Amino acid sequence: MEKKILYINPLHTDVFDIPYRDLLNSAKDPGTVVDVISFKGVGPTHLQYNTYNAMIMPELINQVQKAEASGYDAAVIGCFYDPGLRACREVAERMAIIGPSEASLHLAATLGENFSIIVSERKCIPEMKENVHKYGFIEKLASFESVEIKVHDFQKDHEETKRRIRAAALNAIQNKGSDVIVLGCTAEFGFYEELQEELRVPVIDPGLASFKYAEYLVELKKRFNWTHSKLIGYQSPAAEEMNKWGVFS
Amino acid sequence: MEKKILYINPLHTDVFDIPYRDLLNSAKDPGTVVDVISFKGVGPTHLQYNTYNAMIMPELINQVQKAEASGYDAAVIGCFYDPGLRACREVAERMAIIGPSEASLHLAATLGENFSIIVSERKCIPEMKENVHKYGFIEKLASFESVEIKVHDFQKDHEETKRRIRAAALNAIQNKGSDVIVLGCTAEFGFYEELQEELRVPVIDPGLASFKYAEYLVELKKRFNWTHSKLIGYQSPAAEEMNKWGVFS
Amino acid sequence: MEKKILYINPLHTDVFDIPYRDLLNSAKDPGTVVDVISFKGVGPTHLQYNTYNAMIMPELINQVQKAEASGYDAAVIGCFYDPGLRACREVAERMAIIGPSEASLHLAATLGENFSIIVSERKCIPEMKENVHKYGFIEKLASFESVEIKVHDFQKDHEETKRRIRAAALNAIQNKGSDVIVLGCTAEFGFYEELQEELRVPVIDPGLASFKYAEYLVELKKRFNWTHSKLIGYQSPAAEEMNKWGVFS
Amino acid sequence: MEKKILYINPLHTDVFDIPYRDLLNSAKDPGTVVDVISFKGVGPTHLQYNTYNAMIMPELINQVQKAEASGYDAAVIGCFYDPGLRACREVAERMAIIGPSEASLHLAATLGENFSIIVSERKCIPEMKENVHKYGFIEKLASFESVEIKVHDFQKDHEETKRRIRAAALNAIQNKGSDVIVLGCTAEFGFYEELQEELRVPVIDPGLASFKYAEYLVELKKRFNWTHSKLIGYQSPAAEEMNKWGVFS
Amino acid sequence: MEKKILYINPLHTDVFDIPYRDLLNSAKDPGTVVDVISFKGVGPTHLQYNTYNAMIMPELINQVQKAEASGYDAAVIGCFYDPGLRACREVAERMAIIGPSEASLHLAATLGENFSIIVSERKCIPEMKENVHKYGFIEKLASFESVEIKVHDFQKDHEETKRRIRAAALNAIQNKGSDVIVLGCTAEFGFYEELQEELRVPVIDPGLASFKYAEYLVELKKRFNWTHSKLIGYQSPAAEEMNKWGVFS
Amino acid sequence: MEKKILYINPLHTDVFDIPYRDLLNSAKDPGTVVDVISFKGVGPTHLQYNTYNAMIMPELINQVQKAEASGYDAAVIGCFYDPGLRACREVAERMAIIGPSEASLHLAATLGENFSIIVSERKCIPEMKENVHKYGFIEKLASFESVEIKVHDFQKDHEETKRRIRAAALNAIQNKGSDVIVLGCTAEFGFYEELQEELRVPVIDPGLASFKYAEYLVELKKRFNWTHSKLIGYQSPAAEEMNKWGVFS
Repeated sequence: MEKKILYINPLHTDVFDIPYRDLLNSAKDPGTVVDVISFKGVGPTHLQYNTYNAMIMPELINQVQKAEASGYDAAVIGCFYDPGLRACREVAERMAIIGPSEASLHLAATLGENFSIIVSERKCIPEMKENVHKYGFIEKLASFESVEIKVHDFQKDHEETKRRIRAAALNAIQNKGSDVIVLGCTAEFGFYEELQEELRVPVIDPGLASFKYAEYLVELKKRFNWTHSKLIGYQSPAAEEMNKWGVFS
Repeated sequence: MEKKILYINPLHTDVFDIPYRDLLNSAKDPGTVVDVISFKGVGPTHLQYNTYNAMIMPELINQVQKAEASGYDAAVIGCFYDPGLRACREVAERMAIIGPSEASLHLAATLGENFSIIVSERKCIPEMKENVHKYGFIEKLASFESVEIKVHDFQKDHEETKRRIRAAALNAIQNKGSDVIVLGCTAEFGFYEELQEELRVPVIDPGLASFKYAEYLVELKKRFNWTHSKLIGYQSPAAEEMNKWGVFS
Repeated sequence: MEKKILYINPLHTDVFDIPYRDLLNSAKDPGTVVDVISFKGVGPTHLQYNTYNAMIMPELINQVQKAEASGYDAAVIGCFYDPGLRACREVAERMAIIGPSEASLHLAATLGENFSIIVSERKCIPEMKENVHKYGFIEKLASFESVEIKVHDFQKDHEETKRRIRAAALNAIQNKGSDVIVLGCTAEFGFYEELQEELRVPVIDPGLASFKYAEYLVELKKRFNWTHSKLIGYQSPAAEEMNKWGVFS
Repeated sequence: MEKKILYINPLHTDVFDIPYRDLLNSAKDPGTVVDVISFKGVGPTHLQYNTYNAMIMPELINQVQKAEASGYDAAVIGCFYDPGLRACREVAERMAIIGPSEASLHLAATLGENFSIIVSERKCIPEMKENVHKYGFIEKLASFESVEIKVHDFQKDHEETKRRIRAAALNAIQNKGSDVIVLGCTAEFGFYEELQEELRVPVIDPGLASFKYAEYLVELKKRFNWTHSKLIGYQSPAAEEMNKWGVFS
Repeated sequence: MEKKILYINPLHTDVFDIPYRDLLNSAKDPGTVVDVISFKGVGPTHLQYNTYNAMIMPELINQVQKAEASGYDAAVIGCFYDPGLRACREVAERMAIIGPSEASLHLAATLGENFSIIVSERKCIPEMKENVHKYGFIEKLASFESVEIKVHDFQKDHEETKRRIRAAALNAIQNKGSDVIVLGCTAEFGFYEELQEELRVPVIDPGLASFKYAEYLVELKKRFNWTHSKLIGYQSPAAEEMNKWGVFS
Repeated sequence: MEKKILYINPLHTDVFDIPYRDLLNSAKDPGTVVDVISFKGVGPTHLQYNTYNAMIMPELINQVQKAEASGYDAAVIGCFYDPGLRACREVAERMAIIGPSEASLHLAATLGENFSIIVSERKCIPEMKENVHKYGFIEKLASFESVEIKVHDFQKDHEETKRRIRAAALNAIQNKGSDVIVLGCTAEFGFYEELQEELRVPVIDPGLASFKYAEYLVELKKRFNWTHSKLIGYQSPAAEEMNKWGVFS
């Protein structure tokens, strides 16, 4: 089945584009075409602060609308805060919209009893915890563990990053009752495999998890027409209104 | 990717075997092989009562163990109570184990804001509500709606069944704030498509939802080795002990 | 005590500016100076959809930063979705940031046992319910009642609007156990007083509630230096980074 | 008042039968007759795994049905997982069915503010936590503490067992805010008295708690006809159907 | 076993004393001695308002202290608000203290899936709901139903009272999913039996339920020394301090 | 605006009267008149035990009624347990009634993500936790921290008190994720300012917080007639009945 998926790095930097394109291509279904984009021009290159999430909203919505016009079946919003998830689902009339946090947590909740989320900085925790609650998994959340590594530093010194994630994960497993580890930042790619083998519990990579969830939702859409309900919360604004107000310019 | 999936109708009747085999074959990935089995001999032909769930447990576990020995990648427990989910996940060392309720509710929670579950009889509600809570979705549950149709009567008079499900679903949508409908019995197959078109909200068929979730989990297992955590809750009993106690005989 | 407060109508229309300026001036402390602004140029004139919330985010943040630079002590985000509350609290180093929903619900929770929120359209409910939960009051929420009046129609036919709000409030009081009514849209101004007298329960006007809460928080800031904690969730991004990324341009 | 109570050790071993018979006889009301049974033949001798719970289900239900036919007033399911509680309540038309966890937690919640449960192994925690939630006491649960002693080892070295339970209980009391201790395995008998005296908080023995709760429920049944509601969740299957399907053979 | 129990009608009227003495004597264990008292002098004759609960507190505590000094094993606080439960448990060093709401709800939660509470007036609901939550049963609460009968009118016109309770209970059973009915006022005595037979679900009389729970707790105290934990929440004030401050005068 | 506020130290000691009068006068609005009273005669001088809360109830209600008769606009119940809050709101027909806990927690929930409460003794925690839940903030509660200082010892050795509060607060901030500190006893006055400067998070003084909340609620009452709803939970008893039963004598 052909599935056309857009992975949006909602950042004004393309440093993650090629690694992500390679990562997703290595993991895709045969029939899937995946593209990776990021934002042009000057703007936030990470979304650690809600301020930066807010700043990139119009461009994110714009890209989602363009993606639908270009025939994509799904778009992944490539940040573990799942920024703009509801807005993007409103704008998309047909596409599935996927957030890495939603996809990873649903999976973690199926695979184990309690999960821990390894975040980059303590700053992330309150907002991410709101998402854990919103998705339904607050009682399965064993802990957040912060490694105090900035988003753009995860890939700088792989051994140091791995060392810190491992220590955080071990703490979660041994002291918090966790039996699944979720990597809580899309910049934490490249680590899950080795850690998982070592820790002997599932270690969820949010980029991969969201991409495969996109393929899964596209398949359900194409086969059964199961897709985001447009009745209440994900209802689309009137096209005329959106055009008048320049939503897509 | 080759995926070998067993759909277990955990009932002592084969009346659903052929319809389900056809249903799942019509919905499978090209690489998937799906088999459908039910239980031989005399025993419960429906699981409306927890008593009957209890009665079929040993045979269910037995079949799950056999399935793993036969090389299946996943087994679906074909009843919306998800009977024996934890026990089967303990027994399976490698297979993914899927319950229709867990699969359907995860999907419903992603597709909309609030869902309603259309059950066969009021008797089902308390236990199913415990499952909704266990999976994390109690705050997204708009309502249970009972159509007061017995399990083996869903397929008797299609028009009457459809009429009752439609009425229940409309009540949920108009009065309870629901924007996704979940059919809460695996015997409610053959209805989702028409109702969905009419109601203009997703109508989740639990047999299809659980089967596709099985394919999805198998893919994640094969690609990333993400599978049920064996550390705590789904830890397997010692093989020696199981053998000694005749778990698989 | 001098309190300088900015009420931001985060809309690309000034139709509410004068009525709100008059409303707030009629309710202010002697020492308070209140200004009301809205956004220039073409853009959303209501925020019923999350898409529109997303669109106005950069301008909202921009205005908050300008307000702080201009010496305001507090800014009210004039929409009952409380859009961008966390982002604005990050950006503001000294100002109090107030959302009408947060202010109204805190008040309602103190004044009565259970409150109902009268919203403009059913579309609003899921996101507003997330806020009710986030602020802590989900167990005090008796119901949402929708009057199905669009934001810019509340002020069109006062009698009809009043008639619908009254009917919704009566339903909440008589059938849902509610003893406080919250008007769930900042465009529902001009109605609370008459309804309150008639219904004999508090009817909270969210514009007034948020403005007075702003005065209250400013006073606490000036007297005791009690203000938004900058330690974790409301931590500010680095000024240099914000400047580089054009947050305030 | 005559009360005829059956304590079922749902295990294929009789090692606990005599100690339990003695234990319960030492604690019974004058009018009570208590019998203790276990299961014949080869099968699980402990229920640490859900798999083993599943295996013993048919025999458990069978015994419950026989007990009712023999005139017992109540049956206790002698395992802290409360296996098959709902199924047994369905099957029993007149008897009270008691689980040690339900009985112990109700009591603990009345006697103190927060309780801790001392379990044999970490493996038990997720499922037992589901029960704590189901019975309503999740907010009173201070902690689970695992002593990592296997079920059949509790009675091997009394001093060592006591040492570990004491250490776990002290941790719960001093660091988790617990003021009641619940022994979370029916094989932890023989310890409560000494520990309670030493720790100066109630230490609940689940075997005794469930047996006395059985006497209490029998009395309520005989005096006021208060017994399990047969309207919804504990409704009995039709006798004809159960017979046809060999539930009791 | 000898059990000496004091049932306190915490009201400044003795109109309920004789009916209650008769009621409890008809339901007691052979070894139980039960006394019923009420308060002398002028004061509240019902506790519908929290104000009246507050007014009778000192006398209630006084009587509890006297009861303990007189050798009672338990005291029941005869009002469904369970007024002063914590204070009385602090004061009592040895006695069990029982509230009708706590006793009835624990029982209802064991006997069925969901219960409804039939209260005298809507005024009662918010505070009683806080108790339902405190005891752990908020998720099992199907509904409150108010019959709008004042406390001293329940016994005036038995047929009218029965008619209203029956209507309220039927509404709860048919429309709210309730399978157990709790009579939510100790003045609703004399009705449970007939209604229960008619409605075919357990109907809990709170006076009887609390009295039998008292006998049960006394037995547990006498046999196993299981009693209210004095470590944290029910810790007693220093006797010297209480004497100095005239707690018992 | 003139605001006449009574701060009630509900204790039979006047040792806190003058410090509180000075404290509140230093923090009042220009138009506010604040009086501070305590109780005469022999009785509890602290309310650490619920028993003592119960003992002072009649006098508290009496004073509230007198305050209303004397023209006060609000009364603060000066104890962090918020004793008698509902009863006082029933009795007051016009006045706002404020509890320090309610006022402090509402504020803390607005200022930060998670708060910790520094209490005097472990004994306080269970009841205070019930209040945290009742007000809606249980999910924002990071921890209780006990300094094990008795109420009348907080002001004995300022340095030692400060040292213990600081240590408790640091533990909360560094290990529990707290970003706001609430001082959980009205006798902990005189400490917030220095600690706040040092810890760099808001430190809420409950006496000040409740007093300013009183001013705020009075203003809302006078301007908008927003006041405690008298419809259900805070409904007043009939004056005649109160008079007959000597509520105010």
